[in-house]
Amino acid sequence: MQPASTANQTEAETAPTDLEGLIGRFREALAPESVITDPQRLRTYECDGLASYRVVPAVVVLPENADQVGEIVAACAEYGIAFVARGSGTGLSAGALPRSDGVLIVTSRMRRILEVDVANERAVVEPGVINLDVTKAAAPHGYYFAPDPSSQQVCSVGGNVAENSGGAHCLKYGFTSNHVLALEVVTPDGDTVELGGRARDVPGYDLMGAFVGSEGTLGVVTKIVVRLLRAPESVQTLLAGFPSTDEAGGAVSKIIAEGITPAAIEMMDALSIEAAEQAVRCGYPEGAGAVLVVELDGPAPEVEHTFAEVQRHCRDHGAFEVRVAADDAERAMIWKGRKSAFAAVGRISPDYIVQDGVIPRTALPEVLTRISALSAESGVRVANVFHAGDGNLHPLVLFDGSEPGAVERAEEVSGSILDVCLAHGGSITGEHGVGADKVKYMGRMFTEQDLDTMQRVRCAFDPDNRCNPGKVFPTPRLCGEAPGQRRGVHPLTEAGLADQF
Amino acid sequence: MQPASTANQTEAETAPTDLEGLIGRFREALAPESVITDPQRLRTYECDGLASYRVVPAVVVLPENADQVGEIVAACAEYGIAFVARGSGTGLSAGALPRSDGVLIVTSRMRRILEVDVANERAVVEPGVINLDVTKAAAPHGYYFAPDPSSQQVCSVGGNVAENSGGAHCLKYGFTSNHVLALEVVTPDGDTVELGGRARDVPGYDLMGAFVGSEGTLGVVTKIVVRLLRAPESVQTLLAGFPSTDEAGGAVSKIIAEGITPAAIEMMDALSIEAAEQAVRCGYPEGAGAVLVVELDGPAPEVEHTFAEVQRHCRDHGAFEVRVAADDAERAMIWKGRKSAFAAVGRISPDYIVQDGVIPRTALPEVLTRISALSAESGVRVANVFHAGDGNLHPLVLFDGSEPGAVERAEEVSGSILDVCLAHGGSITGEHGVGADKVKYMGRMFTEQDLDTMQRVRCAFDPDNRCNPGKVFPTPRLCGEAPGQRRGVHPLTEAGLADQF
Repeated sequence: MQPASTANQTEAETAPTDLEGLIGRFREALAPESVITDPQRLRTYECDGLASYRVVPAVVVLPENADQVGEIVAACAEYGIAFVARGSGTGLSAGALPRSDGVLIVTSRMRRILEVDVANERAVVEPGVINLDVTKAAAPHGYYFAPDPSSQQVCSVGGNVAENSGGAHCLKYGFTSNHVLALEVVTPDGDTVELGGRARDVPGYDLMGAFVGSEGTLGVVTKIVVRLLRAPESVQTLLAGFPSTDEAGGAVSKIIAEGITPAAIEMMDALSIEAAEQAVRCGYPEGAGAVLVVELDGPAPEVEHTFAEVQRHCRDHGAFEVRVAADDAERAMIWKGRKSAFAAVGRISPDYIVQDGVIPRTALPEVLTRISALSAESGVRVANVFHAGDGNLHPLVLFDGSEPGAVERAEEVSGSILDVCLAHGGSITGEHGVGADKVKYMGRMFTEQDLDTMQRVRCAFDPDNRCNPGKVFPTPRLCGEAPGQRRGVHPLTEAGLADQF
Repeated sequence: MQPASTANQTEAETAPTDLEGLIGRFREALAPESVITDPQRLRTYECDGLASYRVVPAVVVLPENADQVGEIVAACAEYGIAFVARGSGTGLSAGALPRSDGVLIVTSRMRRILEVDVANERAVVEPGVINLDVTKAAAPHGYYFAPDPSSQQVCSVGGNVAENSGGAHCLKYGFTSNHVLALEVVTPDGDTVELGGRARDVPGYDLMGAFVGSEGTLGVVTKIVVRLLRAPESVQTLLAGFPSTDEAGGAVSKIIAEGITPAAIEMMDALSIEAAEQAVRCGYPEGAGAVLVVELDGPAPEVEHTFAEVQRHCRDHGAFEVRVAADDAERAMIWKGRKSAFAAVGRISPDYIVQDGVIPRTALPEVLTRISALSAESGVRVANVFHAGDGNLHPLVLFDGSEPGAVERAEEVSGSILDVCLAHGGSITGEHGVGADKVKYMGRMFTEQDLDTMQRVRCAFDPDNRCNPGKVFPTPRLCGEAPGQRRGVHPLTEAGLADQF
């Protein structure tokens, strides 16, 4: 974390001449209301969803179309000034944290759905379009856009592309990268290029895949061709109450081992259930040490058949209550508890950190035991909410910022949880991204050589390090530097691969 | 096409001293039988599956493990000599065509399956492992490896990674890139790095996606972590005979429009049916102008339900015979006709070109009409075999190489078919790759700026253009050259997107 910046107060005095020149260029190219330099208004943009990082940008621009994004980025290149792109600002890793000496490009005025092409099952949208609005546009045709982060009512598709966002249903349907067919992108030098597109398995390099999830470090996306999925014929949802996370975890393992791929399997532990109950009165089973939300979708006969199996596996693994949603209203209530969990924790704790880590599914019981131990040792409460099916944990580390040392203790526990994930062959982030927040952990997950390899691509696109600098990569090498001639270690040793993957 | 090279005959005289030095290094690092310089033995490697391109390499090396690959590539870097990697050599775009002044790295001695990790549904294999052997290793556990190119009994997984290979079942299951979790790769300067891996949605750039399908131009893969899929509970296959491709195409459109995703829908026209019948006596319906092979897989109740619908759609669209495979033997016979189609064409024509193009599924009837017209105008027979579900065409252009001008006429028709694909918003290759063969078409499919963007990545990894040079990219710019400051055209205009994608 870093303290809130006060850079804006001195910006007028310290702004270099070339920034003034750049702002002049923006005023020529954009509508007057699209260039913001007023310190009070700039402050609106000082953070994204991770409010512990705050920096007031030097200038904010709100382009209305792809051409204007091209003009803005080309002007930044000409003036040698850094820029950061931002969608709705709901990210949880400070990926859209501004630079006090740079430009913040906000896509919130680029909200047109340019085309819904049902015959070819795709839509073309601008980056500022709200995630859920894609589904709303496709729904009359019986289609939907699959990535469903909890923030889907407010987050932008451009942000989803930057972060490769997932959601409760990415167990079955994959992340954003599985639902993007093509991108139009402005590269850091102002060129507009097309990545992916046209057909499956396009020849040449799949740079679209590299761009999705690059957290704004390779350019700014200006148009997105998304895949639309046909709405499933049948959806069935259940809520199962278990004595503890051990039993619930056992049920998850059994369901997956049986070859069932639910649309979603979400787990919440006692503390997160308590928080959700207080916040939204979702009526989760009383006294449950853990609940599972399991949703199946697909053709009706398959869902019916498999749903019965899932209920049986839950009961066999100790569920004392299995409640099936009878209709959409009951389904919505079950999901309301889960989807409100992060915010709900605010009811039981003045402050909290939302952690995001991944482990192999098979390591779930061990990791939960370790997190309990960390909590007990430190006296810091941890509520656990997770996408159990794919091992994506969201521990909520609770603290009271007004108590001396509480922030530091919470941060230590939160960091230790990532170490536990890594020790079990997992990842430091499942879907929230690295941003500014987890830069310090990248070196724990990747070898120097792996990071060098990514840096080669970064340098190929952004040799001057002006495109969302300071995010994702720790201490970037200078782009002129040769990658060196040292020979690599072999990270995939022939023994112990299961530990590594 | 280019004539068979005679380079090997003069290689001994013209080989520069540094090549001799490099060979000396190979002999130090590898077993004696792993370094081939004998002209007769080198000739074995002069082409891949596209035998119209032939070049005898200066030296062939057969590494036995990843360390040796690292040594070989590092030595090539030190001596400034180009190299090409080759798996089983079954590729159909001359992607593994050697360089007469370069090294051919053959992975056929790297055939160990290092691990089958059923609990985490993955296996770790060396690049020379035969595609079907992965499934054989996984089958006792109830799993399989999904990518199934027609050459799966002989092609290597490393080659599948290079070409992002598909197969009949990639309609439902996707290409190789959807079934690779991590790669260990030797970069052109001899570094060993890991791409992808560990967990879903790994932080940092998804360079694994860019590497898969890069046709050997970014490095040499030394280990592959593949995803294993659980064998489906139920598989049902039918063969339907139609009066013509129009009716068969109508049935395909209806099936897809109904939201059904078969594991495979393959179409063959009258000429390819005739060839298959002569070759393997597959007993396809007599007098059919087209046949469809439709396979469904999944949970038994879903398959049963949907299979009935598919049969109905076939009959409604004019199928005069719908034959359901009663058992595995009948299923195998249905597939035998389809899978032997390419080779079978040799029965009805002395020579043929296997073309590979993609079109949006909705353009199928129009494109088939256009191909018929091209055939009629030129007098060149074209047999059509395709993965109808995803619009991947494999027209077989028949000719007799002993007739004057026949080769040229066939090549002209073959090239015109790609133009038709591009005019309908398609692609110049669905699964065979660009290799040396389709380099000349890349400029028709991509803008200069799109190619420049790919070239940036190429230069980041291979600035000296030593890693499978001459493949994929037309006339590469020098890597030192700046990408230029010209502003881009916007390939995704707001009108007419359906035409473009």
